[in-house]
Amino acid sequence: MRIPVAHSRIRRYQRGTWSGPDDIVVVEEPLEIRLGHGPMEDRKEMRLSVTMRTPGQDEELALGFIFTEGIIIAFSEVLRVEYCENVKEEERGNVVRVELHPDVQLDQARWQRNFYTTSSCGVCGKTSIEAVHAQRVRTIRPWGPVDPAVVTALPGRMREAQVIYKHTGGIHAAALFDREGKLLLMREDVGRHNAVDKVIGAWLLSGRSDPAGDPGQPATNNCQLLVSGRAGFELVQKCIMAGLPLMAAVGAPSSLALQLARDSGLTLIGFLSGDRFNMYSPAGELDTN
Amino acid sequence: MRIPVAHSRIRRYQRGTWSGPDDIVVVEEPLEIRLGHGPMEDRKEMRLSVTMRTPGQDEELALGFIFTEGIIIAFSEVLRVEYCENVKEEERGNVVRVELHPDVQLDQARWQRNFYTTSSCGVCGKTSIEAVHAQRVRTIRPWGPVDPAVVTALPGRMREAQVIYKHTGGIHAAALFDREGKLLLMREDVGRHNAVDKVIGAWLLSGRSDPAGDPGQPATNNCQLLVSGRAGFELVQKCIMAGLPLMAAVGAPSSLALQLARDSGLTLIGFLSGDRFNMYSPAGELDTN
Repeated sequence: MRIPVAHSRIRRYQRGTWSGPDDIVVVEEPLEIRLGHGPMEDRKEMRLSVTMRTPGQDEELALGFIFTEGIIIAFSEVLRVEYCENVKEEERGNVVRVELHPDVQLDQARWQRNFYTTSSCGVCGKTSIEAVHAQRVRTIRPWGPVDPAVVTALPGRMREAQVIYKHTGGIHAAALFDREGKLLLMREDVGRHNAVDKVIGAWLLSGRSDPAGDPGQPATNNCQLLVSGRAGFELVQKCIMAGLPLMAAVGAPSSLALQLARDSGLTLIGFLSGDRFNMYSPAGELDTN
Repeated sequence: MRIPVAHSRIRRYQRGTWSGPDDIVVVEEPLEIRLGHGPMEDRKEMRLSVTMRTPGQDEELALGFIFTEGIIIAFSEVLRVEYCENVKEEERGNVVRVELHPDVQLDQARWQRNFYTTSSCGVCGKTSIEAVHAQRVRTIRPWGPVDPAVVTALPGRMREAQVIYKHTGGIHAAALFDREGKLLLMREDVGRHNAVDKVIGAWLLSGRSDPAGDPGQPATNNCQLLVSGRAGFELVQKCIMAGLPLMAAVGAPSSLALQLARDSGLTLIGFLSGDRFNMYSPAGELDTN
């Protein structure tokens, strides 16, 4: 794997002295995600979104994105994911198209959730939460008791695997672990959401868990996800869409993330660091006054 | 000011022991920004965006957003900013409408930059950078030599002012300082971009700097901005749109942020902590291979 970093001349100040070393920064470029859908004789293309991401694993990102945004509900709806060739030279490698099975109907309900954050439909917290619930493709199977020994070991294992972080000191990560805390998948990206989407997409691509539910396969509902930053509403949403029963964050949760986790049965952990963490869900009630 | 936090029962694990204290989390709710434009006898409304934000200073957020996204180029284009009353009960306080002066023409060029990140037009880094350059309303006046004593004092001053952070331990911040490092404005938000937009919006509302340029007023081109997280492309874009000549970040910059800063003459500082920082721009060339 080519590590997506760039070398740069910089000026460094430290304890009264300037120096002029080379530094390494993480690469950030826009990725456009397109969707091919409809019958083959009348194929349509939709331009879904442009996200600022760290290049690499773009098929995973595109696949994870359309899944956690509720645009597909099962991996079997996807024919293939590939880079677009019919683009300008300078856009090559930055445009990915997901081909849906011709039988897939893109009904409005599937779009609703995807667009409310960037456009306009439900605005209050309640409406948003209702929207994601309406969209949720399966119920979260409760994680059950949390084992502190397992949970507190997760950040160290994710950090160990973070190649780009070691080079640049500045990139987000998300990692999937099994119930015993064994690292299954880790992805890094300048965008917190992208790191999660890449993990989910990679999991789908690996064939280990079709969300439609192959009982013979280990599914995401036996996995726990760790994110390097805060636990915001949108990351909790993505976990729920992916059927993940436990999300742990190094940083703090927001009120809406907490509310959504509780309403959905997601076990939510925050401020995970060293030998301590806070478990926000399942727990007592939330008082916003 | 009512501090936007919520109390919650949680379970805390620390050094082998579970306890069940109350905890305080930062509030996150969606804000819809609408734009009223066109002649008064044929007024039109456009729904611009929904952002997940920490409630408070919503007029500042809306104003900063439309300015740093290039939808307005001067504060004088705005008649007023206010909460919408004609919304569902549960959306009250979460919908803000910016009224533009009836003479303002919303031409396509103004929208281009606003939409390329969420929809689709320029995709490669180069195209995006060209788009923001085309949109830039004024040239950055170079900051000149950086004084380490001034720069290294900024994070402590911002942190001291962070009321919500003190309560919750988890929220982003952005702060505007003058050339000597005196704190002018600080805003906190769950979203990094929102914190910057609130600062810029507050600055506009205070009347201290009309981007159209009142030479009798101290303008943002004599100010420096500090952000609590990473220096991503979009934050650097916002600084440039606001005419800020120096942006400092506690975290790392991305390659595209660095490239944009250099092309625009913005002084970009990263990894600002204690008595050290890296100055990425102005500096040497970037080698992405």
